[in-house]
Amino acid sequence: MKKIYLDHAAATPVDARVKTIMDKYFNEYFGNPSSITEVGLNAKKAIEESREVIAQIINALPEEIIFTSSGTESINLAIQGIAKALKHKGNHVITSKIEHNLEPDKYGQVQPEQVEQAIKHNTILASIMYANNEIGTINNISKIGEIARKQEVYFHTDACQAANYLDLDVKKLNADLLTLNASKIYGPKGAGLLFVKKNTKIKPLIYGGGQENGLRSGTENVPAIVGFASALMLVAKNRSQEFERLLNLKNMFIKELKKTPDTIINGHLIESLPNNISATFKGIEADAIIFHLNEQGIFASTGSACTTKSLEPSHVITGIGIPAQHANGTVRFTLGRETTKKDIDYVVKIINQVVDKLRAVSPVQFEQKLIV
Amino acid sequence: MKKIYLDHAAATPVDARVKTIMDKYFNEYFGNPSSITEVGLNAKKAIEESREVIAQIINALPEEIIFTSSGTESINLAIQGIAKALKHKGNHVITSKIEHNLEPDKYGQVQPEQVEQAIKHNTILASIMYANNEIGTINNISKIGEIARKQEVYFHTDACQAANYLDLDVKKLNADLLTLNASKIYGPKGAGLLFVKKNTKIKPLIYGGGQENGLRSGTENVPAIVGFASALMLVAKNRSQEFERLLNLKNMFIKELKKTPDTIINGHLIESLPNNISATFKGIEADAIIFHLNEQGIFASTGSACTTKSLEPSHVITGIGIPAQHANGTVRFTLGRETTKKDIDYVVKIINQVVDKLRAVSPVQFEQKLIV
Repeated sequence: MKKIYLDHAAATPVDARVKTIMDKYFNEYFGNPSSITEVGLNAKKAIEESREVIAQIINALPEEIIFTSSGTESINLAIQGIAKALKHKGNHVITSKIEHNLEPDKYGQVQPEQVEQAIKHNTILASIMYANNEIGTINNISKIGEIARKQEVYFHTDACQAANYLDLDVKKLNADLLTLNASKIYGPKGAGLLFVKKNTKIKPLIYGGGQENGLRSGTENVPAIVGFASALMLVAKNRSQEFERLLNLKNMFIKELKKTPDTIINGHLIESLPNNISATFKGIEADAIIFHLNEQGIFASTGSACTTKSLEPSHVITGIGIPAQHANGTVRFTLGRETTKKDIDYVVKIINQVVDKLRAVSPVQFEQKLIV
Repeated sequence: MKKIYLDHAAATPVDARVKTIMDKYFNEYFGNPSSITEVGLNAKKAIEESREVIAQIINALPEEIIFTSSGTESINLAIQGIAKALKHKGNHVITSKIEHNLEPDKYGQVQPEQVEQAIKHNTILASIMYANNEIGTINNISKIGEIARKQEVYFHTDACQAANYLDLDVKKLNADLLTLNASKIYGPKGAGLLFVKKNTKIKPLIYGGGQENGLRSGTENVPAIVGFASALMLVAKNRSQEFERLLNLKNMFIKELKKTPDTIINGHLIESLPNNISATFKGIEADAIIFHLNEQGIFASTGSACTTKSLEPSHVITGIGIPAQHANGTVRFTLGRETTKKDIDYVVKIINQVVDKLRAVSPVQFEQKLIV
């Protein structure tokens, strides 16, 4: 059975070219980058070259790139690190409701004016996602960053989901801090980074050998860092073509999904990632849809992979105004580098079969859910 | 030129068998372990099987194993995590001078009675290395753990350097917390773990998706975790044979080094790792020795890789009573799985040449250093 993987927002496979580049760092250039021998210096050189490649792509200085183990760690370093460094100023951090505080609009977008109004005398940081991981909506990061800078509040953006498709120029984005990871861009798991603008006041989470400019101790994960840089280079090279290609597939997919009865397409129609389709199928449990799609070799997901264990409806989906009784019927399809038009044709066909079947076998459940 | 790598305490190459097992997790079983699709469940299964393998080797429960990104992160989680959870009780943490407070003896050993005497009403944690990374001295962890437990103080041990050669049974060691990493045991970089005894009060450093029992959020580094478990299995299988084999090589090495004039062999002669030889060559800068050995294809190191950037003499070496004027002449040789008798013969020959040469070209420096 052909397998169609539509969960690229959760994890991407490592690109074969990236894997090949990583390979020699496992047992040839395996040294500790802090060691002064040839084998250590080779590892150190690989890291510094990776740092330069990445810095150039995001228009930063090499010393502004702090390698971490994941996007999650980078976000924690940004928020906790700024909070520790600025505790004399205050402890107020602004984030969106879909990350946690601000109320986004029905498209899941945070308006720059909302951020402006939320800033208080003790606000130390605003952290707004570049693009949402569940519904793909893109925020106006550049404008939000401009507002934060004017108010002398540090601004962090999580660009993990955006990296494949949107411009990562930290100067244009007016970002003081920016999070990226490798596992969402066809690079390896175990590699994240935090861009930290020069002179930003921030303290480490992890202390020890003083690697990464003292901001992140621990032996550097050399193969993962090298893989991260290669993966980002490949992404940067084909970003606009891939955007166009996937946008066409997405539009085709949505056009077909709209024919499915009682289905809501979530998120912004224009300011949205070209690979993300979030659909709420009223009256059905998304878990059941995922399960049946999986049986047919199609891999999609409910909310983000991070919240799949929770029985609560996704805070992103309820945050954009989908009533709780429908929210649990939300499926996320995230396309990727290998996704073809043929895949979408097949997936649409199977979705309709599955939805029909689930609604047919469980009409009571469907009606009950609608009445609640 | 043949390359002889004698810096295994800094980093080990990934064992070819480990690498082969890891390979399919980069682009075949690449899913996010939190995803409920087949590709995610396969990744999840790989992690849970790895956790069981490791738990069995260290005589723990699977749920007591928390995967992190490195030994350094695990130690930070242990210390900061306990400090956050027990801040109502106090903030006193006991560590050795070679990790930082207690004065070890001239062999670099911490005596259990010292730990007992250091415990105060507000002591929340004692953290003592199983074996020292610079000089290889082994501490009586089991006894120290027993004392800490009797006094109701949590006990953590960093077992990263010990893992290849010593018993890791957490029950026998009386450890509440134990740190291990993969990159010192012929596994990949980017994988560490913290054993956390059931019911230990501890809080996370990194918040987010709630992975690892809520103690360490972030998408799990699946290939690295799988590699970690395979590496530890291989180590456990051959631990005693490898201990014997390396101890023979070490004794041979030391016997030869003792013939080199003005040379001190550091650390305990018996209670010491079988792969670690720390030698202080009076009157010579270790950097110069390392450099010349490197030219001959021999890779050794000064102190730990973590402190190589610092110009200060190693706190471990001065901590065991080597005068500051000699401490900078300390070279660490750490043998490994590929080290042979022939290697040692060659290394000893080259060391003597290098030491003679350096002392010959810089007699003034040598004498000055001795006088200081």
